[in-house]
Amino acid sequence: MKLNCDLGESFGAWTMGQDEEVMPYIDMANVACGFHASDPSIMARTVTLARKHGVQIGAHPSYQDLAGFGRRSIQHTADEIRGLIWYQLGALEGICRAHGTTVEYVKPHGALNNDMMRDASILQAVMEAVAAYHHQLPLMIPATIHATEHSALADRLGLPLIFEAFADRAYDDDGRLVPRNQPGAVHNDPDTIVAQAMTLASQGGLYGLSGKWLTLTANSLCVHGDNSHALAATRAIRDALNQRNSTA
Amino acid sequence: MKLNCDLGESFGAWTMGQDEEVMPYIDMANVACGFHASDPSIMARTVTLARKHGVQIGAHPSYQDLAGFGRRSIQHTADEIRGLIWYQLGALEGICRAHGTTVEYVKPHGALNNDMMRDASILQAVMEAVAAYHHQLPLMIPATIHATEHSALADRLGLPLIFEAFADRAYDDDGRLVPRNQPGAVHNDPDTIVAQAMTLASQGGLYGLSGKWLTLTANSLCVHGDNSHALAATRAIRDALNQRNSTA
Amino acid sequence: MKLNCDLGESFGAWTMGQDEEVMPYIDMANVACGFHASDPSIMARTVTLARKHGVQIGAHPSYQDLAGFGRRSIQHTADEIRGLIWYQLGALEGICRAHGTTVEYVKPHGALNNDMMRDASILQAVMEAVAAYHHQLPLMIPATIHATEHSALADRLGLPLIFEAFADRAYDDDGRLVPRNQPGAVHNDPDTIVAQAMTLASQGGLYGLSGKWLTLTANSLCVHGDNSHALAATRAIRDALNQRNSTA
Amino acid sequence: MKLNCDLGESFGAWTMGQDEEVMPYIDMANVACGFHASDPSIMARTVTLARKHGVQIGAHPSYQDLAGFGRRSIQHTADEIRGLIWYQLGALEGICRAHGTTVEYVKPHGALNNDMMRDASILQAVMEAVAAYHHQLPLMIPATIHATEHSALADRLGLPLIFEAFADRAYDDDGRLVPRNQPGAVHNDPDTIVAQAMTLASQGGLYGLSGKWLTLTANSLCVHGDNSHALAATRAIRDALNQRNSTA
Repeated sequence: MKLNCDLGESFGAWTMGQDEEVMPYIDMANVACGFHASDPSIMARTVTLARKHGVQIGAHPSYQDLAGFGRRSIQHTADEIRGLIWYQLGALEGICRAHGTTVEYVKPHGALNNDMMRDASILQAVMEAVAAYHHQLPLMIPATIHATEHSALADRLGLPLIFEAFADRAYDDDGRLVPRNQPGAVHNDPDTIVAQAMTLASQGGLYGLSGKWLTLTANSLCVHGDNSHALAATRAIRDALNQRNSTA
Repeated sequence: MKLNCDLGESFGAWTMGQDEEVMPYIDMANVACGFHASDPSIMARTVTLARKHGVQIGAHPSYQDLAGFGRRSIQHTADEIRGLIWYQLGALEGICRAHGTTVEYVKPHGALNNDMMRDASILQAVMEAVAAYHHQLPLMIPATIHATEHSALADRLGLPLIFEAFADRAYDDDGRLVPRNQPGAVHNDPDTIVAQAMTLASQGGLYGLSGKWLTLTANSLCVHGDNSHALAATRAIRDALNQRNSTA
Repeated sequence: MKLNCDLGESFGAWTMGQDEEVMPYIDMANVACGFHASDPSIMARTVTLARKHGVQIGAHPSYQDLAGFGRRSIQHTADEIRGLIWYQLGALEGICRAHGTTVEYVKPHGALNNDMMRDASILQAVMEAVAAYHHQLPLMIPATIHATEHSALADRLGLPLIFEAFADRAYDDDGRLVPRNQPGAVHNDPDTIVAQAMTLASQGGLYGLSGKWLTLTANSLCVHGDNSHALAATRAIRDALNQRNSTA
Repeated sequence: MKLNCDLGESFGAWTMGQDEEVMPYIDMANVACGFHASDPSIMARTVTLARKHGVQIGAHPSYQDLAGFGRRSIQHTADEIRGLIWYQLGALEGICRAHGTTVEYVKPHGALNNDMMRDASILQAVMEAVAAYHHQLPLMIPATIHATEHSALADRLGLPLIFEAFADRAYDDDGRLVPRNQPGAVHNDPDTIVAQAMTLASQGGLYGLSGKWLTLTANSLCVHGDNSHALAATRAIRDALNQRNSTA
């Protein structure tokens, strides 16, 4: 079970996230590509930091919306979706290449991620874009109860998928994240977070908000590094995973 | 003697240039990368058009300045210069890769091009950026009487250079383009333009504004396609070059 | 019946529209404010041109989306909608003030205009923004069969409304513009366009696509100046209106 | 002696500065207008906060350069300089107007401020812009030994000036700020900062880095609120000024 984290989300004079602090504890860095955050200099620093810690670099492309941090839906044609993914993926690859490394996966950001999970034509465009760029580059998408369908779509394009789940978010009985504005949506207790992480890692699922068991195959857990609380949870998950591995 | 042209300089709803008309007559397309013009969709269309006509694709990176079309100097550190070249070069490469082709050279645009020719530290940063991205990717720079020094700098980085000259611009006795606001700076007469092109191609130089002979080794001529006048000149140069080759 | 036209939609090095040609024939210029098109220099030129021809200046605010020309819906809170209208309205007012003139009305652009006509909460936010900026500044909205409800909403805020209709677009029986991708949506025949303009001006309505009479009270007709065809139609409408007035 | 502070410099999801903490201690808020920082929503929040504390609102216009935070010189014509000032000044005024208040002065930001102090043609364009917008709106510029010349320029346009000085920066014998990369450029000791503030307020000058007395008439001191250290210095200056007033 690999830990992934959204990183490199500063922009110009503005700082966001505690990249230096969280990088030692993760396996995969989802690196902003300049459309919702970051700029070429910050991308170069983020790639350098990831390399130093042996962390895999993933492109984290977004709608072009710095003012809205990529969190707002913007209407696009399939052609436009493919174009913005190639552009950002290539831009990060350009910076990786100059640093002797390479992009190893793609995880869409924010509203683009949400939109592709509710609109099959957007997911199709995203999948086509990644597959056309490089046939063996994996796409990371949220683990849901529709994983089998998503895998079938991806297989047709020869596209590997990585399924990610959240240790700090509650799921409803249909396997969807409980919206943040609902009670119980976010786990704040470190023990609960670690427990959900370990259940996901060991038992291939988790208990939903109602207490019902939910089978959910995840290859990666999305963790956070934007504040000290999130950082502590990330370290706790890492320790628990390490301990399991060493006693296994 | 290859013909290169700045292309793909539309942006969103705005159109610039007559790309479809000029593409059949050129050998090398300098494709805007989104910082002074273009967007991912326009880049994809431009790459498709270039492929259709067997035209080489070059990255045309710029300072990030859509409002100023990349024509205004903006102060940058060497790190920032390298970052913006990697970013734009990679972005275009991403779109090329998805279309089964590749970026074959780099030509800086506008103020970045001017700045690198008057400030050795900027030229150094540009050269380092291209060499670090890919050791055999050529950089296109203006042919000047300092070509030997520029070649020496590039050799140290293992960077191939392409020297470009202009058929429709007057040069002063020091081998510099006469500024556009001075009389005689721009040739409008097609015969003059074709004559300068042929002299550059056949005799390795041209006659400067004062009438003095100027040795100037150029591998490529920069032509234009932004209006019917420019288009006619481009076709005339192409015809003259073809005729020379067929009679050679 | 006043003629209004979207103008000042160039941006930086890119030109759009034939502002100089159309300005003599219109009464009201909807001036882009930098979010979907234009920049401060183009706004200053557009304001100067409108003043020269005695044309009223209206702010034409948009979602912030140069790449999409303001034609793409972007999710916003009501606070954000109000903010972007105040910002753009004020920006144009700043330029007007320096030129000894003032903004005389507001007409939302593109997707913002469409969104406010299908979502009452967005229309409410737009109305509140204009009313809070200046209590007697009119808001221009499309004339529809819901005009009475829209007037009631505006009255509560003390906001004057201007209703605009289109002479070159077909309406369905419910008083909505027929979508552009449907047959018959756009009138191309100058006689049909002039006839619809005169019917709107003289009889307070028009015949819909099905031939059914539609009562539609309009204070202004939206005309176009982006190509020679549109320009000819605008001149024809102007001539017909002038002739009616002189014979009245 | 009034205290002014650069404020409202967050952007979208990124936070900068401790506006809520510093606002109670200052008299004048230099509010970012969206070109180097801020957006309409942040501008509305900043205006609301300033009003709550009875703080005067000044426009803080900049070159259009979010990526560079307005700290990089960008070449502009005088027309462009005037346009960008009218645009930003008007935009902030629009937001002020909707909140029942008004812009009371203008202080150029960053590279635009530096450029106008070293290039008389830029200063002329800035002065003309502010004077054309509103004849009694003051322009804030750095206090230097050239204040008399600057006043003469402004008088010709009927433009009031506010001269600002710095309590936490060393001046050289020519009355210029010692560049930040030189030793002793920035005062970090609170006592030194308060002493320089009080000398400026009481004696119309300060002691330069060499110890030489420098006559410098300042109407306002620029203070900072971007970290706890700066905040403490600002409070100390405010306390010292208050104490002087109460004992006067």
